[in-house]
Amino acid sequence: MPSLILTLNAGSSSVKFALFTCGPEPDLVASGKVEQLGHDAQLLARWANEQVIDDCRMTLHSGQFHAVAFDAVFDLIRRCLPDAHIVAVGHRVVHGGIDYTHPTLIDAQVLADLENLTPFAPLHEPHNIRGIRAAGMSYKAVPQIACFDTSFHRQHPFVNDVFALPRRYYEQGVRRYGFHGLSYEYIANALAQTLPEVSSGSVIVAHLGNGASMCGLKGGQSIASTMGFSALDGLPMGTRCGEIDPGVILYMLDNEGLSSGQISNILYKESGLLGISGLSNDMRTLISSNSPAARQAVDYFVYRVRCELGGLAVALGGLDALVFTGGIGEHQALVRERICAQLEWLGVIIDGSLNVKHAFDISAETSPVRVLVIPTNEELVIARAVAKHLSG
Amino acid sequence: MPSLILTLNAGSSSVKFALFTCGPEPDLVASGKVEQLGHDAQLLARWANEQVIDDCRMTLHSGQFHAVAFDAVFDLIRRCLPDAHIVAVGHRVVHGGIDYTHPTLIDAQVLADLENLTPFAPLHEPHNIRGIRAAGMSYKAVPQIACFDTSFHRQHPFVNDVFALPRRYYEQGVRRYGFHGLSYEYIANALAQTLPEVSSGSVIVAHLGNGASMCGLKGGQSIASTMGFSALDGLPMGTRCGEIDPGVILYMLDNEGLSSGQISNILYKESGLLGISGLSNDMRTLISSNSPAARQAVDYFVYRVRCELGGLAVALGGLDALVFTGGIGEHQALVRERICAQLEWLGVIIDGSLNVKHAFDISAETSPVRVLVIPTNEELVIARAVAKHLSG
Repeated sequence: MPSLILTLNAGSSSVKFALFTCGPEPDLVASGKVEQLGHDAQLLARWANEQVIDDCRMTLHSGQFHAVAFDAVFDLIRRCLPDAHIVAVGHRVVHGGIDYTHPTLIDAQVLADLENLTPFAPLHEPHNIRGIRAAGMSYKAVPQIACFDTSFHRQHPFVNDVFALPRRYYEQGVRRYGFHGLSYEYIANALAQTLPEVSSGSVIVAHLGNGASMCGLKGGQSIASTMGFSALDGLPMGTRCGEIDPGVILYMLDNEGLSSGQISNILYKESGLLGISGLSNDMRTLISSNSPAARQAVDYFVYRVRCELGGLAVALGGLDALVFTGGIGEHQALVRERICAQLEWLGVIIDGSLNVKHAFDISAETSPVRVLVIPTNEELVIARAVAKHLSG
Repeated sequence: MPSLILTLNAGSSSVKFALFTCGPEPDLVASGKVEQLGHDAQLLARWANEQVIDDCRMTLHSGQFHAVAFDAVFDLIRRCLPDAHIVAVGHRVVHGGIDYTHPTLIDAQVLADLENLTPFAPLHEPHNIRGIRAAGMSYKAVPQIACFDTSFHRQHPFVNDVFALPRRYYEQGVRRYGFHGLSYEYIANALAQTLPEVSSGSVIVAHLGNGASMCGLKGGQSIASTMGFSALDGLPMGTRCGEIDPGVILYMLDNEGLSSGQISNILYKESGLLGISGLSNDMRTLISSNSPAARQAVDYFVYRVRCELGGLAVALGGLDALVFTGGIGEHQALVRERICAQLEWLGVIIDGSLNVKHAFDISAETSPVRVLVIPTNEELVIARAVAKHLSG
C-alpha cells in the first residue's frame, strides 16, 4: 500500500489536486483538476505519464461547486488508487496574513486564524478553508499542512509592504502581501538549481496566467511584487482589473450608486482582458481575434507588464534575468515577444526562433539579461513542504 | 491705465492669482496667494520684484473660504492697482474631461459642461467653477479663459488612457486623464527653448509638491502620466494616498462599514505622507524629524517616485532627461539625491554639489541622462493662453 501525499489547490472556479510519493523529493503519481464550465463541472485526472485516469462530468447545483469538487477528488482516489494510503494533505492557502511566514500544520487555532483572515481574501480564502474541512472529514487524523501564497513575500522591505494610508491600516494588516508565492518559490528553487549565478542576482518573474502578477527577486528572495492587499492589484488579469485609480471606486459609489458587492463583482469578474475586449478573458481567444477591442486588451496587458517590469527593475537596482511562467507566460510566444520588444536599452533581447519554440532560455546570444521560460509547479512546492514536515 | 491679464488658480485650500501685462509674452506684474491656515486665511501678494504689496489676515467662517478668498483678491487689485484694467481672466481648471483639449473661452455652455464634469473631480472642480462665477461678477463682460490640467495629456495612447474595466466605463469618460498639465506644459516649453536637443527626446518630469505626479514626454508631448482618473492616483502626496489596491477600498466598505464620504476623506486628507508618518504632510517637517515613521514616509515617497520612473522609462523606450519641479522637486536636494541614487544603470548620475545648490543642470559630467531642476510656472502658461486668445 503506497504512502502518498495529497495536495489540494482550490481556486475560485477550479480545484486542482495531485498525489506524490513521500520521499525527500516527492515524485508525482497523478494529478487532476475539477473545472467549472457553465453549470457543468468536469474532472480530468492523469497519471504522471499523462495517461488519463478518469474523465467524468457532473451537474452541479449552484453554490455547491467546491463541496462536490472535493468529494469527486476523494472519490476518484478511492476508486482508482484503492491501495493508496494518504499520509498527509497539503493545501495552497491564498492568505496567511502577517504571521504565517512558513508552511504550517493545521490545527483548530490555525483554522480559526484562517477564518479571521477571510476579510483579506473574501473570494478565495473560504474555498481553502472548505478544502481543509473536507479533507479533514475524508482523511481523519491525517496531518494537513497549509502553504500560503503570501509567505514568500513576507520579508519585503517596509516600502513594499505599506500603503500610504493612515498608520492604523498597516497595524491592522492592510499591507502589500503579494500572492502567487508558491509559484515564485518554485521558480526561485528551479533557478538556484539550474543557473545559480543568475539566481544570486536580480531576477524578475512574470507569472502570467488567468491570474497574473510579477515578482522581483534578489538572491532568490522576494523583495517586491505587483500584487498588493487583495488579488485585484497590479497587472490586469482575465477578469480582474489590476491597478486602478481609487477615485474610480468612489465614482462608482457616488455617481452610479453601486453597492460594495456590485463593485466587487465588476472588479473581480467583469474587468481585465474581458472588460476591455468585451469578448473573452482568455488570451488565446483574444490573440486569434480580429476585433480591435481584443487587440486593445492584449496591448494593454503587454503595456502594463512592461511598465511593472521597469518599476521592479528599479526596485532591484538593475536586471540579470527575466523569467516567464504561468499559462500565458509559458505558452504565448507572441505575448513574450511583445513584452520584450524594444527593451534593448534595459539589456533584454530575445531570440525569435527560440521564443516560438518556448525554449528554456529564449535570450539572444547578445542579450545581457537572460530571458527564460520555466513552467511553474505549485503542487510540487506544496508536496515538498509536506514531505519536509513528515520527515521533521 | 495699464491693461492686465488676471490668472486665478483655485485649489482645495488655496487660491493663487497673478497679474500679467498683455503682450505676446506676458510679463508678471504682481502675484499672490490666499492660504487657509486653520480657521484663519492669509493673503500675501508681491510685486514682480518680490516686494510685498499687502499682507492681511481674515477670519473665515467655515465653508466660505473660496468666496472670501476671491473677493479678497479682487479687492486687493482694486485697492493696490486702482488704474489697472483687467482685460481678461484665465483660470486653471482641474478637469476638462474628454473634450476640452485646449484653452477655451468660457460661455454658458462651457460652464454647464464644467458643472457636469464635477463628478470626475468632486473636491476640485467646484472651486474652479466658483472662481469663474466670482470673476464674472467682478469683471463683467471680460472674457474668461479656462485652461485645463487635463488637456496636455489628452493625446495619450489608448493603453495610457484606459482602465481594465468593462468597456462602458471608458465610453462614459472614466479614463486616465492625468493632471498638473499646465506645469508640464511650462516645463516642455522651457526645455524646448533652452535644450531643444533634449526636448526632442524622452523626458520624465517629476512634479513633486503637496500634489505630485510624473509625466513621460516624447518630443515634448505627454505620452503617459502617473495620475489617472482622479487626483488620488500614482505617487503618494502630502495627504493623498496615491496608488492603492482597490481591494483596500472594498475592505473599508465591507469590514469597517465606512461610507463613501468617510473613505474619500481618508484617501484625500488623512493619507500620503501624513498617513504614514502620523506627523505631517510637509516634506520639510518630515526630513528634519528624527521620528522613524517620518523617515518611513520619506522612504516610501522616494521609493514610489523611483518605481514610477522605471515604468515611465519603459513607456518612453529609454530616457534622455529627468526634470524635477514643484515645491519638493525644486527645493529638496536630499529627496532628489535619494530618487537618483543607484540609477547609474539607467544612465542617471547627479553631481552632489550642483544638486545642493539647486542648479539648473545637476547631472554629473559622466551622466548619459541630463538631470534638471526647473521651477514651474503654471500662471505664466495660463497668461500665455489668455494672451493668445486676446491676440486673435
